[in-house]
Amino acid sequence: MISTIALLTDFGLEDTYVGVMKAVIAGIAESVQIIDLTHAIPAGDLRCAALELWRAAPYLPPGAVILAVVDPGVGSERPAVAVEFKNHIAVGPDNGIFSYLLFDEVPARTIRLENVAFQRLPRSSTFHGRDVFAPAAAHLAAGVKIEALGSPASGLKQLTPPRLELPPGNPIEGEILHRDRFGNLITSIGKMVRDNQGAALYNWIRPREQPIQLRDPIRLELPGGITLAMRDTFAAVPSGQPLAYTGSSGLLEIGLRDGDAADSLQLHIGDSIRLTSA
Amino acid sequence: MISTIALLTDFGLEDTYVGVMKAVIAGIAESVQIIDLTHAIPAGDLRCAALELWRAAPYLPPGAVILAVVDPGVGSERPAVAVEFKNHIAVGPDNGIFSYLLFDEVPARTIRLENVAFQRLPRSSTFHGRDVFAPAAAHLAAGVKIEALGSPASGLKQLTPPRLELPPGNPIEGEILHRDRFGNLITSIGKMVRDNQGAALYNWIRPREQPIQLRDPIRLELPGGITLAMRDTFAAVPSGQPLAYTGSSGLLEIGLRDGDAADSLQLHIGDSIRLTSA
Amino acid sequence: MISTIALLTDFGLEDTYVGVMKAVIAGIAESVQIIDLTHAIPAGDLRCAALELWRAAPYLPPGAVILAVVDPGVGSERPAVAVEFKNHIAVGPDNGIFSYLLFDEVPARTIRLENVAFQRLPRSSTFHGRDVFAPAAAHLAAGVKIEALGSPASGLKQLTPPRLELPPGNPIEGEILHRDRFGNLITSIGKMVRDNQGAALYNWIRPREQPIQLRDPIRLELPGGITLAMRDTFAAVPSGQPLAYTGSSGLLEIGLRDGDAADSLQLHIGDSIRLTSA
Repeated sequence: MISTIALLTDFGLEDTYVGVMKAVIAGIAESVQIIDLTHAIPAGDLRCAALELWRAAPYLPPGAVILAVVDPGVGSERPAVAVEFKNHIAVGPDNGIFSYLLFDEVPARTIRLENVAFQRLPRSSTFHGRDVFAPAAAHLAAGVKIEALGSPASGLKQLTPPRLELPPGNPIEGEILHRDRFGNLITSIGKMVRDNQGAALYNWIRPREQPIQLRDPIRLELPGGITLAMRDTFAAVPSGQPLAYTGSSGLLEIGLRDGDAADSLQLHIGDSIRLTSA
Repeated sequence: MISTIALLTDFGLEDTYVGVMKAVIAGIAESVQIIDLTHAIPAGDLRCAALELWRAAPYLPPGAVILAVVDPGVGSERPAVAVEFKNHIAVGPDNGIFSYLLFDEVPARTIRLENVAFQRLPRSSTFHGRDVFAPAAAHLAAGVKIEALGSPASGLKQLTPPRLELPPGNPIEGEILHRDRFGNLITSIGKMVRDNQGAALYNWIRPREQPIQLRDPIRLELPGGITLAMRDTFAAVPSGQPLAYTGSSGLLEIGLRDGDAADSLQLHIGDSIRLTSA
Repeated sequence: MISTIALLTDFGLEDTYVGVMKAVIAGIAESVQIIDLTHAIPAGDLRCAALELWRAAPYLPPGAVILAVVDPGVGSERPAVAVEFKNHIAVGPDNGIFSYLLFDEVPARTIRLENVAFQRLPRSSTFHGRDVFAPAAAHLAAGVKIEALGSPASGLKQLTPPRLELPPGNPIEGEILHRDRFGNLITSIGKMVRDNQGAALYNWIRPREQPIQLRDPIRLELPGGITLAMRDTFAAVPSGQPLAYTGSSGLLEIGLRDGDAADSLQLHIGDSIRLTSA
């Protein structure tokens, strides 16, 4: 069986940092397959990294090792960890990068990466991706048991969760979390489930809660007084027109057919949005 | 035998879209090898995608599956297809992205990707790269027969072909098709074949036609009154000087030794060019 | 055993040049694993390429083939070579790209890539990465002996080495060599080794020479009258403050906690720096 390591960092591809991590992995786990999730997380942006991991994780093959290195505190006392989920083990710094994964699942255990037998020595003080995290992921992919890497840790650092207010009535209030290459904006408002009585929307953070009921027509209110109707797909509006739709990761998104919604509507990460029955 | 999937998209590497497609592939076809042709096609630019596929396809190993996703019409009624060529199967939207490949070869058959057994369900309305095309390519790479994916389609959508006028006399008229990272410009004028009587040039789209005869000295006329001589290689001109030459994909190119021809000569995609005997 | 090819170019990822090289490799050496060191070397920047190869090479698995293509003289008479080091074979143009690797090790032999049986014919005059270097690297990875590729060459082209003055007393004078994605600056001053009597620093180019002794407190003098103290890690200074530290490749670096040192301190590649006892 071929093992998989899924890599996410803020190292970019301009330097050889990612290549060197892959070289270290290749020296430990010969037949591992590496999937680059992205290396373009803005430098040190843990919230973006946590969101992107949460969005991508459901698509990884079972048994994949997640290797996530956005590590502005490298060299400080922040722990290095391996976190065992049902289908994956996640390796990286304990700085909140894994905290959005916890919304879906309580990990079976967390291990501190203390065993220097599975590190590259002498360890640098600025590149634990190479010296601590890549070796740990490679050894796990090669079959080393997680408990061999160190002793159990209790709990993981939490980041501020995405903002989402679900009051008994409407509106639902959320925020813009991410802007993609196309200028589409991913929000904190979760998947719409239609039932016999109307449209139900729920918080992506608490998917098991009772969904909020909103009756058609639903509209999304954006900063600057812009209002959008919910559509099924880009093809439902003319070229150049904006729309709101349920995106591919199950979150409400804002797009513009054949164009860039973020630029056209002047929307930014962190902006407040409101979803309401008209 | 290891299967190969060659990937070309306009998804960029800033987001996890490409990584998620690879994760889906890894979950279906374990030992497949993925080659990234490029993910930097300008958003929705089908002509650029069609050209880059045409330029790269001859170098792929036999049996490779081409997975090409530039899909501005995702969610509309545009069909999803698998196209069987002699050496490759191409998977993607039927929006013209494969139409330049047809200049070299008539495909054996085209299949509509209708069989949901080879899709990821529930299918999103905005990311068929993940839910339709990557699964189809992975199943093909894993040995599934193309006819299992759906029913035969007739014909493929065509894009406007690159402009090239081959009048009985000279000049030959063409256009600039692509600007590469170095500022070299790839044109629509095809390979020069010298015979006993002079230089022969032919249209890249109709390579089997009678080549046009042009006698030395040949010159390339560019917008702004610039004229360039044909050279064999960059080393034939001094540093900082522009030149015309036959590029690595067999098309006439415009370059500048140790510099950026597009910036220096102020040339753009779509500009008209003329090749003539002086 | 899976072979590894480590790839470094200035081709970028906007075009399909890198993908086409990988396609050519896949057609020759089926089960090879490719590691992208980087493709973002500035166009034609041999000094950057030589430095990045020197920094990355120690982390490659034994037996890896280095395929390095920064080749502004393609089409001229510059030789194409394969260079046999103790743990690796390096393939590329003989234009100085491998000359920093020579600081650590005298190669066992250098072979000119003359045997057209291991090239892609007809060879283009502008893309030897595809037609000469990728085939050579793939054949080597597939087990072809280096001497089969051509005849022995004597010597390799040298680049100007990084500037470093090690006078009998202090200060040590060096230069800024590289700026990474985070705005950290890598310098030509080598690793600090502490002994009983103080801090020892030595030239990265001549690691076997007697290290220079510098007594604490040591300070780094930068252009514009800026002076920095040496620190062990970013966490040793407050957010927003600059520092000097020994980086992950053993060279002295200049950074800024939670920020961009190059922008904040207005430092550039080639700037002179001085390390001195206060």
